[in-house]
Amino acid sequence: MIFRQFFDSESSTYTYLLASAVGREALIIDPVKERLAHYLQAIEDLDLKLVKAIDTHTHADHVTALGDLRESLGCVTVMGEYTKAECVSMHVTEGEIVDVDGLRLQALYTPGHTNESFSFVLKPQSPEAVFTGDVLLIRGTGRTDFQGGSADRSWDSIVNKLFVLPDETTLYPAHDYKGWTASSIGEEKRHNPRLAGKTRDEYVRIMENLNLPNPKMMDVAVPANLACGQE
Amino acid sequence: MIFRQFFDSESSTYTYLLASAVGREALIIDPVKERLAHYLQAIEDLDLKLVKAIDTHTHADHVTALGDLRESLGCVTVMGEYTKAECVSMHVTEGEIVDVDGLRLQALYTPGHTNESFSFVLKPQSPEAVFTGDVLLIRGTGRTDFQGGSADRSWDSIVNKLFVLPDETTLYPAHDYKGWTASSIGEEKRHNPRLAGKTRDEYVRIMENLNLPNPKMMDVAVPANLACGQE
Repeated sequence: MIFRQFFDSESSTYTYLLASAVGREALIIDPVKERLAHYLQAIEDLDLKLVKAIDTHTHADHVTALGDLRESLGCVTVMGEYTKAECVSMHVTEGEIVDVDGLRLQALYTPGHTNESFSFVLKPQSPEAVFTGDVLLIRGTGRTDFQGGSADRSWDSIVNKLFVLPDETTLYPAHDYKGWTASSIGEEKRHNPRLAGKTRDEYVRIMENLNLPNPKMMDVAVPANLACGQE
Repeated sequence: MIFRQFFDSESSTYTYLLASAVGREALIIDPVKERLAHYLQAIEDLDLKLVKAIDTHTHADHVTALGDLRESLGCVTVMGEYTKAECVSMHVTEGEIVDVDGLRLQALYTPGHTNESFSFVLKPQSPEAVFTGDVLLIRGTGRTDFQGGSADRSWDSIVNKLFVLPDETTLYPAHDYKGWTASSIGEEKRHNPRLAGKTRDEYVRIMENLNLPNPKMMDVAVPANLACGQE
């Protein structure tokens, strides 16, 4: 398998490019519009054919490259079934497999940060990694105070859907703000300060008291992302 | 093997933590002083014992955490034999193996960015990855205009020592400024704009005409790093 992680320093977003080393078909997860040229370069340099572009959820902090990638390369655009982004061509449901040339990702509905967030498990029969979007971060969790977010549902998604994956599953989030590039399910179970040793009620209280300002790009990013970054 | 890549956004430095999953002994490559707390947290969270801390070369753009890590955790500090940093306790020579609990890194003398730079090949008998410091970057190379740098020697190091590694060897540099986190030897042979299809003379000309300003931290970082970050 070919695997690349990219970092957008403006929004602290991680984007993932995965491809089959044999057939060279690729998919990308959570691409950022401003980084389009880099993805196109990597795809060309690595001699790949991008067939799918996934957004884990409607981002509020950056504009997606989904629409631009579809326009440039003709890939299928993928999001969860509850997204309001009408420009998306494939809407995945709980448990559905996204297959790219034998590379399999299983969609898990993991609301909480937004009400339409999905996570994606790589090689679900023996999980190797999970791309969690913003629901579970490294030593943190995604805020739950807008876009249909819910601390209760975040807890359920994390505890009942993500923490049941094997401890050694690598965690690849959509963001990190401290320079950490990956974690694992076991590590977050043991060391995530919002979750380890906490009850659901304690978690909900933590999330309700974050008092974060709105993301500076929110008013631009959400409408733009509902149009796959092309409005 | 346990593997973690960290990013220091101030200096765009990548730091690598490697450990044996069995014995839990670890080494770190190119740690940044300001990120010390993060490394200590990761080492503790992952239940590791840091036994060695390596600097690929005397950095001019950030202050090393080598001395602080030695003070905090009692690890051995490692650099190449030609470093002027007297605080270093283990000076490696060409071909020498740095062994941590069976995890083997081979030192390669790769001058060019500085006259004392080493690269380190992970699992040298069947190379998996190479940590190149600043001599070879992703789609770039380290500047050669100070600290005993030499475009000629940079070319020799890259072409005769790094490009002879298998194409599939993952390249982990000490820096990236565009959000790319890794590459491979084959990819750089084919797509590095300073090297692919270029002659030695063309490369030397490119490097001699970069006209870069000095790193803003140079006057602080170099003397500080000669004292392992503790002056």
